[in-house]
Amino acid sequence: MTKSAPGIPGSLSIRHLPGLRGVPKSDLEAILDTAQSFREALDSGAAVPKTLTGVSVVNLFFENSTRTRLSFETAQKRLGASPMNFTASGSSAAKGESLRDTVRNIESMGAEVFVVRHSSAGVPAFLASQTGSVVVNAGDGACEHPTQGLLDALTMRQHLGSLEGKQVTIVGDIRHSRVARSNLWALSTLGANVRLWGPATLLPRHSEAFGPKVQVAKSLNQALEEADAVMLLRIQHERQSSGLLPSLREYRHSFGLDGDRLRLAKPGALVLHPGPINRGVEIVSEIADGPQSVILEQVTNGVAVRMAVLHLLAGRNTNV
Amino acid sequence: MTKSAPGIPGSLSIRHLPGLRGVPKSDLEAILDTAQSFREALDSGAAVPKTLTGVSVVNLFFENSTRTRLSFETAQKRLGASPMNFTASGSSAAKGESLRDTVRNIESMGAEVFVVRHSSAGVPAFLASQTGSVVVNAGDGACEHPTQGLLDALTMRQHLGSLEGKQVTIVGDIRHSRVARSNLWALSTLGANVRLWGPATLLPRHSEAFGPKVQVAKSLNQALEEADAVMLLRIQHERQSSGLLPSLREYRHSFGLDGDRLRLAKPGALVLHPGPINRGVEIVSEIADGPQSVILEQVTNGVAVRMAVLHLLAGRNTNV
Amino acid sequence: MTKSAPGIPGSLSIRHLPGLRGVPKSDLEAILDTAQSFREALDSGAAVPKTLTGVSVVNLFFENSTRTRLSFETAQKRLGASPMNFTASGSSAAKGESLRDTVRNIESMGAEVFVVRHSSAGVPAFLASQTGSVVVNAGDGACEHPTQGLLDALTMRQHLGSLEGKQVTIVGDIRHSRVARSNLWALSTLGANVRLWGPATLLPRHSEAFGPKVQVAKSLNQALEEADAVMLLRIQHERQSSGLLPSLREYRHSFGLDGDRLRLAKPGALVLHPGPINRGVEIVSEIADGPQSVILEQVTNGVAVRMAVLHLLAGRNTNV
Repeated sequence: MTKSAPGIPGSLSIRHLPGLRGVPKSDLEAILDTAQSFREALDSGAAVPKTLTGVSVVNLFFENSTRTRLSFETAQKRLGASPMNFTASGSSAAKGESLRDTVRNIESMGAEVFVVRHSSAGVPAFLASQTGSVVVNAGDGACEHPTQGLLDALTMRQHLGSLEGKQVTIVGDIRHSRVARSNLWALSTLGANVRLWGPATLLPRHSEAFGPKVQVAKSLNQALEEADAVMLLRIQHERQSSGLLPSLREYRHSFGLDGDRLRLAKPGALVLHPGPINRGVEIVSEIADGPQSVILEQVTNGVAVRMAVLHLLAGRNTNV
Repeated sequence: MTKSAPGIPGSLSIRHLPGLRGVPKSDLEAILDTAQSFREALDSGAAVPKTLTGVSVVNLFFENSTRTRLSFETAQKRLGASPMNFTASGSSAAKGESLRDTVRNIESMGAEVFVVRHSSAGVPAFLASQTGSVVVNAGDGACEHPTQGLLDALTMRQHLGSLEGKQVTIVGDIRHSRVARSNLWALSTLGANVRLWGPATLLPRHSEAFGPKVQVAKSLNQALEEADAVMLLRIQHERQSSGLLPSLREYRHSFGLDGDRLRLAKPGALVLHPGPINRGVEIVSEIADGPQSVILEQVTNGVAVRMAVLHLLAGRNTNV
Repeated sequence: MTKSAPGIPGSLSIRHLPGLRGVPKSDLEAILDTAQSFREALDSGAAVPKTLTGVSVVNLFFENSTRTRLSFETAQKRLGASPMNFTASGSSAAKGESLRDTVRNIESMGAEVFVVRHSSAGVPAFLASQTGSVVVNAGDGACEHPTQGLLDALTMRQHLGSLEGKQVTIVGDIRHSRVARSNLWALSTLGANVRLWGPATLLPRHSEAFGPKVQVAKSLNQALEEADAVMLLRIQHERQSSGLLPSLREYRHSFGLDGDRLRLAKPGALVLHPGPINRGVEIVSEIADGPQSVILEQVTNGVAVRMAVLHLLAGRNTNV
């Protein structure tokens, strides 16, 4: 039995989800409330409204992905959609067609929703400006990964209640992380305080852009102190030119989360990681698999959050 | 509300669609009429008969494609099918299995419809001779792309009425174009007059094979003169060995469609392009996006035409 | 009209299908009986229970496959599932994530069934130990390909009746063949006698592991003598390091099945091959396409067997 009904399609102030920057608190909360309702339905086996039945959904993945695509596809199917997948290799894009032409073309086939992943920052926002279809960002360069930010917020909210005044620590390659960026926008809007830590070369150059609630810490110990939640970021080998990152051994030594360090946070502090995990680098297995880890809950919430976003932005009211 | 009902599955004289060569006018018109009915249903949101429900459809793409595959898949899903996609990479074909064995094998799994794209001319026709399943060509080498020819005819018919006696101009790489070839068969059967123009190296060697209604023009100006519709072909970098094509700059200068040239055609003449467009090469953006362009309508009609072909060749009567 | 109803989901003693080794005869027979019932429904067009409707099925193909994946996907769709496909390229696996983490992750998204193909022996069995979801092996290295073993047994049973005491000959690269291995476990459990033959370098090192009913023959002639069924294995170029295999011409000369050799078997002996066939190497076309060949029946039975396995291991009782 779900405690609450999902929100009404079309009730958000936003029409697309290119990112979480600038999304008003009321929209974030409406998405999280609807996601919570879907999560409870998934857990209990209760039926969910098939509001995407007959809606033409296209997953436009210009950058490879397994987990994010499977999560979106699971969400789409649970809402009744029969999505189509487009991947970059062998596509018109490879023939030199402009992104705008590709999207307007697929839109002319009847596509109503685009879930877009691209290695370049800004592509989903650009496409949202070029199409009458709904655009949801599934990760763009080092810019945003809004459904990841939302699933992290949902997971924290389930354990901590309101995020107002809560202390969240993010450790790792903040500078190149779209996950971190989406989290920073969501967490600051939702009232959390955030401390950042990582190698100096991988800290953001202008953390003040995220507002006064986001601070760069002075040390790992200070970053972890009294934290309600600790989020580790994946070391993205593929995103970094040489020289920005110490060796993996040094990284683990200086930045990896183990039991001793976790004890600096509040008792029972949550441990989050967007995955895939480099076990023994940014986190030791005992913590990743331990009682404070909510890493697999994040994955389950990912499906619920993506259902919520798609339902609210593209669901058909008549099917509710 | 659709004006007319779609045709009855099985009512065509053909059993497969390897190409438009030799397809009788009555079949072409039945397909276009059914496509028109589906197009109107798509526009109005009216229900279409799910005549492919439970029909096992396999998209056999030995050559990469994004747009054509998405269009076929959209058409299949709108008719109730749940298609399976087969692409060449990593397939049995790569293990040296013969095409005939691959198709008879998949047929033994229950496949009833094959939509086939292959880089070699003649593959769909060959497979149609080897299987009891329905074969629809989604493009074979430089031979045919029949659903493209049909969607072009449908688009012209919507704007010009009957194609009998209409003047259609095709400019570009006619020699290597399966799009041009399918258009020539359809247009001549439907009674249109066609003028061809392009670099001498890319004009067909034997245009007389298409009958007296198809002529090679003497100049670009003469080709465009009094045309009811102008179709530009995509410059296919990938199909040409060096030496056949002038530089892109020269191509644009000598063959690209711009406003001055378009004024040689009839006022309001249609501008068609099969996409993806090389903007600023075969067509300038002002024309591609201008009021005479029907390029995106072609894409929408592509879904309707593919629905019509699949419905008429493979639909289940009992579900109508 | 089916002669018998499919078995009841959950009624097998096994919970996963990592292989046929150790699967009790009662389970093998229950799967074959259910597969027979599905096969008859496929032939007659009778409805089958949609016991996978709403069940989240993921095809995890770490190794390329066309035919096996299409067969599983066909089986899944016929039972009402809407499967998701995961292939290795561009996956988290490529980012260094452990197999266990990948599977637990996808399980957290709600996956209930994994169909797993991997180039390393033992992966499906390992994953079955790590997840609460149902794991079905679609081929692992040179270890097992259990649904192939089952479809071969079903095909023989349809023609020969009980396999008890029947003589089956397998010719080819036994040592590297997961098909052969799954057949050996199934056939010996079902009471058949098996004779093996092939190049000395490709015969199994310890055929006694399969029990007294499995014998290495002394010559091709002796292997074929009085056989009820002859199974040829595909020469797997890709699995062998140089030196293990004579040239293809020599292979055909010494081990290929032709009419003269087939006459050594019982009159009307069945000819099986798992495909894809190397025509003119392990079998001549006249035999592959001849009246004793059941090669395409094997393919059709593959769908029925995969339906049976999925129905019995993962079907929902309530939908029957």
